[in-house]
Amino acid sequence: MAQLYYRYSTMNAGKTLELIKVAYNYEERGKRPLILSPRVDDRYGRGKVVSKAGLDRSAMPFEEDSNLLDLFMAENDVAAVDCVLVDEGQFMKKHHVIELTEIVDGFDVPVMVYGLKNDFKNDLFEGSHYLLLYADKIEEIKTICWCGRKATMVARVIDGNFVRKGEQIMVGGNEMYVSLCRKHYKDGMIGDAATWPAGRAAQVPDEPSAGKDPE
Amino acid sequence: MAQLYYRYSTMNAGKTLELIKVAYNYEERGKRPLILSPRVDDRYGRGKVVSKAGLDRSAMPFEEDSNLLDLFMAENDVAAVDCVLVDEGQFMKKHHVIELTEIVDGFDVPVMVYGLKNDFKNDLFEGSHYLLLYADKIEEIKTICWCGRKATMVARVIDGNFVRKGEQIMVGGNEMYVSLCRKHYKDGMIGDAATWPAGRAAQVPDEPSAGKDPE
Amino acid sequence: MAQLYYRYSTMNAGKTLELIKVAYNYEERGKRPLILSPRVDDRYGRGKVVSKAGLDRSAMPFEEDSNLLDLFMAENDVAAVDCVLVDEGQFMKKHHVIELTEIVDGFDVPVMVYGLKNDFKNDLFEGSHYLLLYADKIEEIKTICWCGRKATMVARVIDGNFVRKGEQIMVGGNEMYVSLCRKHYKDGMIGDAATWPAGRAAQVPDEPSAGKDPE
Amino acid sequence: MAQLYYRYSTMNAGKTLELIKVAYNYEERGKRPLILSPRVDDRYGRGKVVSKAGLDRSAMPFEEDSNLLDLFMAENDVAAVDCVLVDEGQFMKKHHVIELTEIVDGFDVPVMVYGLKNDFKNDLFEGSHYLLLYADKIEEIKTICWCGRKATMVARVIDGNFVRKGEQIMVGGNEMYVSLCRKHYKDGMIGDAATWPAGRAAQVPDEPSAGKDPE
Repeated sequence: MAQLYYRYSTMNAGKTLELIKVAYNYEERGKRPLILSPRVDDRYGRGKVVSKAGLDRSAMPFEEDSNLLDLFMAENDVAAVDCVLVDEGQFMKKHHVIELTEIVDGFDVPVMVYGLKNDFKNDLFEGSHYLLLYADKIEEIKTICWCGRKATMVARVIDGNFVRKGEQIMVGGNEMYVSLCRKHYKDGMIGDAATWPAGRAAQVPDEPSAGKDPE
Repeated sequence: MAQLYYRYSTMNAGKTLELIKVAYNYEERGKRPLILSPRVDDRYGRGKVVSKAGLDRSAMPFEEDSNLLDLFMAENDVAAVDCVLVDEGQFMKKHHVIELTEIVDGFDVPVMVYGLKNDFKNDLFEGSHYLLLYADKIEEIKTICWCGRKATMVARVIDGNFVRKGEQIMVGGNEMYVSLCRKHYKDGMIGDAATWPAGRAAQVPDEPSAGKDPE
Repeated sequence: MAQLYYRYSTMNAGKTLELIKVAYNYEERGKRPLILSPRVDDRYGRGKVVSKAGLDRSAMPFEEDSNLLDLFMAENDVAAVDCVLVDEGQFMKKHHVIELTEIVDGFDVPVMVYGLKNDFKNDLFEGSHYLLLYADKIEEIKTICWCGRKATMVARVIDGNFVRKGEQIMVGGNEMYVSLCRKHYKDGMIGDAATWPAGRAAQVPDEPSAGKDPE
Repeated sequence: MAQLYYRYSTMNAGKTLELIKVAYNYEERGKRPLILSPRVDDRYGRGKVVSKAGLDRSAMPFEEDSNLLDLFMAENDVAAVDCVLVDEGQFMKKHHVIELTEIVDGFDVPVMVYGLKNDFKNDLFEGSHYLLLYADKIEEIKTICWCGRKATMVARVIDGNFVRKGEQIMVGGNEMYVSLCRKHYKDGMIGDAATWPAGRAAQVPDEPSAGKDPE
């Protein structure tokens, strides 16, 4: 009895590194993982999942109207798929999530989805919303605020300013995202910019992230 | 550093019994819990949380427009409150959830909310939605489907029929609710009615449940 | 694929109430739980599990040399057993734990064991030791110290004094047990006796607990 | 209120990668992690933690008689330490574990220990034993058996044979370790050697692992 796992976190908690680790563990035991990644922005859609701490893996990109069940079955015909791993799950549409449940329930193959839960305005993403409704297990990948408390929220920062308005997914912007505890999200305190990773803000214009989890 | 806990489950998983246990544990250590319960239906609004497996406790009812922070502060002035326990958290409004975060962040008092996550149409309740966004910890209280698999969904059953349409909260109806695994929710298979608790369907007309978790 | 669960806690965390809740949930779905309880002391061996917060259930007692697999199979022949629940799991012998794994692995029936982990000298019980080695899932039932921190240790108190020496299991004594956080266990601070449950110490001589979890 | 975390798993579950991820997350927020690693074997004692999936980090080695509290305080004097991460925690002595609790309780600094729980004979390591007794949180890092079930046990394999006897920690041997579910550990079925990572057995003689988790 396989299950659908939703492993959520705020930004920069190591979701993608966790996904790569699981893929590695499957392969080490002679099993085959299928890695899927939503193509939100053409400029980023390069068929890769990339962890900021290091390590990357190739992934199969899917579009807004891709059918994940069809995609899985085509792969499964080539060689048995032992688990499905989805990166950036918050960008899925409702139908994608339901297709994942069909893989779990119809083929008894476990599916692990990694993604954000809350957006920068503290609403749910469409993907998060339906994962919270359909997953068998909801698990948190924890990280910390600059103050040392657990981070549960995500702030958008543009030119050093905490912003609370704008599109949920921003394409080609120069924004960055910071994980905060609830208290500092409420207060709008984003900590000492000097403690942010060197070059991160500067790096964004060169490689527009489309509001994607840059992990 | 207190936290806001959201302990969700499907119907009849023992949420209220869990709440009563936590209250008991606090009191046994000389501490004072404050139990809150939303008054959704006047006929049910009797200031009590009731566990179907046995045991009940008196609770402070609150209305749609009650301010939970004010309510907490008034109680805390009488005698220090060591934790806040909320039953049927799915029936809270957005402002209630935010008021609970003020109790946690401003007074360093832990708040544990027990409630459903998914409604019978497999949407989120307003309370569930904002608890998923604001809670520090999201924990599941597990229960099983009639088939033995973990239950993750809730079906409304009227006159023995699985229904998928209707108001989210039903007042004075003769419906009952059954916890199912995703597969049997999809298939609409509610199991053998003979295995349901004796007298449960019959009991409903006598004590309209307002769509509330009858636990 | 059933699993062996070890749900541990300190004293008075509500383990037995949790066990009774799970039994109730199974029965409500037309399923049959088998409840087992080790008979450590004849005077207590009355075939019952009793929760201090209220509620009790009859249970099948077993002896130091009982074979739990045989016991399960005899019951399973009468009517299919859907899950096995064990109270006071810390008092099991190594062979009991291994017999439980045979039930899980051979019959695909889930087994949930509730019990202490640490004894009052902060060693493992024999039952705890082997449950930690053999269980598929190790889960904590949390409770608090008198200071409000999470309790992880258990102190023996005799005539109001914190004692650190003596038999692991005491028969017919007038001791009581208090759950403490690590800091207060180290310091030997058992809190204000006035906050202990009324009549608890006094009650012990009348009903010797054999060092059992009096939950 | 910091806590002592014990994050256990079987072999090759990605414990060290998880440790490196946590260190990275702390540093990214301008915080300083201190990584400690027991020096079990001089030939391996190179002040590094190494993840098999890729990535490595330098670590401070400690000896059987090192005092971890002293070691922490010396480092903390140089620059504030925000968290302590310990690799291969199963190789710690009892006194090491107690020293870690002094760091947590006395300095309010969180300590996360990664390590095995069960040895290849299915006994506890000394480090595991005391971590299970003293940790505030016991968390599992999961991995799978070759059959796809969750792995909970570790087998020692020498020249392709499953062995159940021998020293707990082997120095300079040509053994390898395989994570198995309980059923396959009992049966002694180690799966298809062809599915093991290429070159792993061959690699061992060149770099004796001292029975260490080669992750």
